[in-house]
Amino acid sequence: MTSDLTCGIDIGGTKIAGAVVDADGTVVAEGRVESPAADAAAIATTVAELVSDLAAGHPVRAVGVGAAGYVAADRSTVLFAPNIAWRNEPLGADLGGRTGLPVVVENDANAAAWGEFRHGAGRDAEHQLMVTVGTGVGGGVVTGGLLLRGAYGVAAEIGHLCVVPDGLPCGCGNRGCLESYASGSALVRAAQAAPSPAVLAAAGGDPARITGPMVTAAAVAGDAGAVSLLAELGGWLGHGIASLVAVLDPEVVVVGGGVAAAGDLLLAPVREAFDRELTGRGFRPRAAIVPAVLGNRAGMIGAADLARG
Amino acid sequence: MTSDLTCGIDIGGTKIAGAVVDADGTVVAEGRVESPAADAAAIATTVAELVSDLAAGHPVRAVGVGAAGYVAADRSTVLFAPNIAWRNEPLGADLGGRTGLPVVVENDANAAAWGEFRHGAGRDAEHQLMVTVGTGVGGGVVTGGLLLRGAYGVAAEIGHLCVVPDGLPCGCGNRGCLESYASGSALVRAAQAAPSPAVLAAAGGDPARITGPMVTAAAVAGDAGAVSLLAELGGWLGHGIASLVAVLDPEVVVVGGGVAAAGDLLLAPVREAFDRELTGRGFRPRAAIVPAVLGNRAGMIGAADLARG
Amino acid sequence: MTSDLTCGIDIGGTKIAGAVVDADGTVVAEGRVESPAADAAAIATTVAELVSDLAAGHPVRAVGVGAAGYVAADRSTVLFAPNIAWRNEPLGADLGGRTGLPVVVENDANAAAWGEFRHGAGRDAEHQLMVTVGTGVGGGVVTGGLLLRGAYGVAAEIGHLCVVPDGLPCGCGNRGCLESYASGSALVRAAQAAPSPAVLAAAGGDPARITGPMVTAAAVAGDAGAVSLLAELGGWLGHGIASLVAVLDPEVVVVGGGVAAAGDLLLAPVREAFDRELTGRGFRPRAAIVPAVLGNRAGMIGAADLARG
Amino acid sequence: MTSDLTCGIDIGGTKIAGAVVDADGTVVAEGRVESPAADAAAIATTVAELVSDLAAGHPVRAVGVGAAGYVAADRSTVLFAPNIAWRNEPLGADLGGRTGLPVVVENDANAAAWGEFRHGAGRDAEHQLMVTVGTGVGGGVVTGGLLLRGAYGVAAEIGHLCVVPDGLPCGCGNRGCLESYASGSALVRAAQAAPSPAVLAAAGGDPARITGPMVTAAAVAGDAGAVSLLAELGGWLGHGIASLVAVLDPEVVVVGGGVAAAGDLLLAPVREAFDRELTGRGFRPRAAIVPAVLGNRAGMIGAADLARG
Repeated sequence: MTSDLTCGIDIGGTKIAGAVVDADGTVVAEGRVESPAADAAAIATTVAELVSDLAAGHPVRAVGVGAAGYVAADRSTVLFAPNIAWRNEPLGADLGGRTGLPVVVENDANAAAWGEFRHGAGRDAEHQLMVTVGTGVGGGVVTGGLLLRGAYGVAAEIGHLCVVPDGLPCGCGNRGCLESYASGSALVRAAQAAPSPAVLAAAGGDPARITGPMVTAAAVAGDAGAVSLLAELGGWLGHGIASLVAVLDPEVVVVGGGVAAAGDLLLAPVREAFDRELTGRGFRPRAAIVPAVLGNRAGMIGAADLARG
Repeated sequence: MTSDLTCGIDIGGTKIAGAVVDADGTVVAEGRVESPAADAAAIATTVAELVSDLAAGHPVRAVGVGAAGYVAADRSTVLFAPNIAWRNEPLGADLGGRTGLPVVVENDANAAAWGEFRHGAGRDAEHQLMVTVGTGVGGGVVTGGLLLRGAYGVAAEIGHLCVVPDGLPCGCGNRGCLESYASGSALVRAAQAAPSPAVLAAAGGDPARITGPMVTAAAVAGDAGAVSLLAELGGWLGHGIASLVAVLDPEVVVVGGGVAAAGDLLLAPVREAFDRELTGRGFRPRAAIVPAVLGNRAGMIGAADLARG
Repeated sequence: MTSDLTCGIDIGGTKIAGAVVDADGTVVAEGRVESPAADAAAIATTVAELVSDLAAGHPVRAVGVGAAGYVAADRSTVLFAPNIAWRNEPLGADLGGRTGLPVVVENDANAAAWGEFRHGAGRDAEHQLMVTVGTGVGGGVVTGGLLLRGAYGVAAEIGHLCVVPDGLPCGCGNRGCLESYASGSALVRAAQAAPSPAVLAAAGGDPARITGPMVTAAAVAGDAGAVSLLAELGGWLGHGIASLVAVLDPEVVVVGGGVAAAGDLLLAPVREAFDRELTGRGFRPRAAIVPAVLGNRAGMIGAADLARG
Repeated sequence: MTSDLTCGIDIGGTKIAGAVVDADGTVVAEGRVESPAADAAAIATTVAELVSDLAAGHPVRAVGVGAAGYVAADRSTVLFAPNIAWRNEPLGADLGGRTGLPVVVENDANAAAWGEFRHGAGRDAEHQLMVTVGTGVGGGVVTGGLLLRGAYGVAAEIGHLCVVPDGLPCGCGNRGCLESYASGSALVRAAQAAPSPAVLAAAGGDPARITGPMVTAAAVAGDAGAVSLLAELGGWLGHGIASLVAVLDPEVVVVGGGVAAAGDLLLAPVREAFDRELTGRGFRPRAAIVPAVLGNRAGMIGAADLARG
């Protein structure tokens, strides 16, 4: 029975991805286009066209959108997006008018967390924390089977937990945020400051051209310097997760995002720090820390499921 | 119509308090006895007697218990309590047998948070963070109208958010917990290390006899040293609340517990630090930080309401 | 008797200043020219001309040079200068050849410290720490009447005391250096991040145009935001000085540099933090913290005196 | 020629040790007695007797005393000693009267540093920092061949460099001192908090009986937990040394004290942190970090040499 299909859209700063997803989380069709991020109207047009293309072969009954911004409690309005030209943008209503379908909008990290919860690494859990380690550090929380959206739809900004008072500056204007120590950007800065020969070679000898994937690749290939950088990042991540688990008490912590491609080179130090620092350890069951399984489709799959209502 | 009464019990390390509460949160009867904390069986007997005494004049249909420990997801079993002789104690089942009434058990800080949410400072909110600053720092979270209990009933241990890496030791075995900087115990330690003349006089000249209420009283009376100690504590609290609000996005933060008796001498510096550090400030509605209103009855009132089910 | 004259030169990244100084530290003539910082040979030519001009009317018997770099133990060779085109530059020998006079080269912060020690705020002391708060944080140490130069002539780099592990990045490549929290640059960054209306007005409404003197001027005029920024800077400085005094045990700490123009708006919070944090306070005489008195002539006067040998 | 003998005395909280030392630093006789630390007069009597006994067979011309306290600039008066009953004690004058010999008093860590400088690991240097890691962290500085005593004889309290703002409490009343992270006491506390099986076995199963030497012995025997504790301590020590070298610019850093018995298990992580954090690394010669060679005789040998004048 393929009639219960919905469409999931993931709007990022550079790409817009879309998929038709069935009730089991299976992607039956997908597409990807450039994101006209600087032009709010163009984004709406582009998304509507993408939905139209996808729906041509697979009739969908609703659309879920994951967007990199603060989404209001109406699950339609984007209050603010750091990298896209949205300020109090009625994105859901606009897309509803253009597509003639019910539309639900959610923060992209929340949508990804929901995807992993429904159809991925957290599918057997009721309480899940997802940590996404990409350029920044994002997250999503499911508690008691419900997505924790918060009063203003801006919950789970876990990258902005302050872990070092008076610490490294963060793009958010604060100092010492988890994101300043445990993101892909932090990894690149650390690698540029003290590049190992293998990483430097991968960047053609120019530290300014070092990227996160170069560090991960060097680590996987056994480069001690790169392994050490990932271990430092993982230590900070585990430190932050210990604080978050004290507050949220999930049964599973799902770690995703581009940096998570490093696998146990990242997760082993995460678990080591978490095990050492979780409050009440020994008197409570310990949350499992596991890798995400849906990759960069998590946001689309989660958004499609949220649209299912 | 007074037939919809329930009983709320608050079991602490030194006292057990109980109340009969109606559906509006009004306490219609209450009582208080010593806590035989070292003897699990004696606690059960004592609570059952207290319920029996209270119910004699006010027929109750259920009992809610707030207890200072980790409470399992069955809302009956206390997994562990730091100051009471409970290890995997089937407290709810035991009390149910003794009283012949349905019994619900909840962590005491969660119960107090629920009390403030239902009938106190958070009664108009759907999303509330409560921070209780007493000997330690505890908390409770309500999100979307539901108490955030977590997978193992041990959520909202906000006193153990790590705010200073390699910082002051905490009773939980970690270093740098919020509780080490923002609790009544931290206040007393700071006052003992550098007592102002007014505080020292209140303690009869012996720093070892300084208590939190002495510091608060001196601050209220205008003692600059005591004011400064409360401001430092408040600064740490606001720092921690900024991180917690980034994760939980409540619309109101309720501050209770004994130290909150200092009123704006505590809350003004809390708000100042919070306003300075909240991530995304300016692009999101800001949570209000307000004092608790139910005092030490919050736990009983909350427990009684939870029993209402 | 005016025959005992020497010449003091201060070579900075933008200006070269020179003076003829007598044995009492009195400046009898002075001059100032642009610094051709990118061209080592041009600097030598320029300095030689400046000496020649100054010496025309006031015969000098030796030349002392303060230079913003690491100066080797031979007191002639500049090992490295961050802002000038010197790498193992035989500056003293070169100038000796050009001028026909004995030349002594010293680090510029050391020269300024020596100037204050001989003829300024430290003239009655035997043991002095000087802290210079300008764009960066520099220093000079006199102990037992001798300038502490260290094994390689690079002592007293007090701006690079690490005060916050994993803290703000420093231009030196480390994180958490005192200079990252207590320099004029740190002041400007803090003011740009949260400009008070008065400071913003002084900068014509553009945060990028805020300068340190604007902040100081606003503070002197009573602007609360600017006062608070200077107090924060002073707190860090006092914190660092407490550590330095534990190591060096001077009887006087002289605070100079452009930011010190703020006077007690800076020094009061410096003293407060120092008094609160000095180890062994109460069991030892406490070093006095005093403002420098020679202003930006300290380096020339000190260099001239060092040349006196 | 053995006529140029002097006597060196090391007064600690539990033992008083004495030696007759020749001009080459060779110990020709020595003795050790209990320290009557609570009784200032008894200490003087005991030291005078020890000198008399030692001098019976080896005529000495002067006495040098190292004492665990703040020693005034007169090199005779002990201003304050944390563990001995001295407050403004005229120790040198008293001993001079009792022995009929010239007496020089110096802080014990300074005396040990001088011993290593004259006849030990720093004998080829002109500029030396000594770090003594015992129960606490102490130090001594030699710069330009002179002992850095400071204005009040209390310089080189390097254990009280603040390395973590708001960090672990220190016995000196501050928080975050190097001594709180890098001393033998810190090592024991860390081992007690998380004892490895090997260390716990050495302590008969009782964490309260763990000592520093037990940890060191377990590390030498290959116990991973103990190795890790020493590495953490060494990391903090190297961190602190990087700051101290920025200020003092020595050519050699001598590491002594009981914990230094761990050898490279301590020194390798010290060097690793130092190499990573020294400011200006790459543009300056790097100080060598070497083990002390005189063991617990360093204080006596140094004191004897200081007496030589």
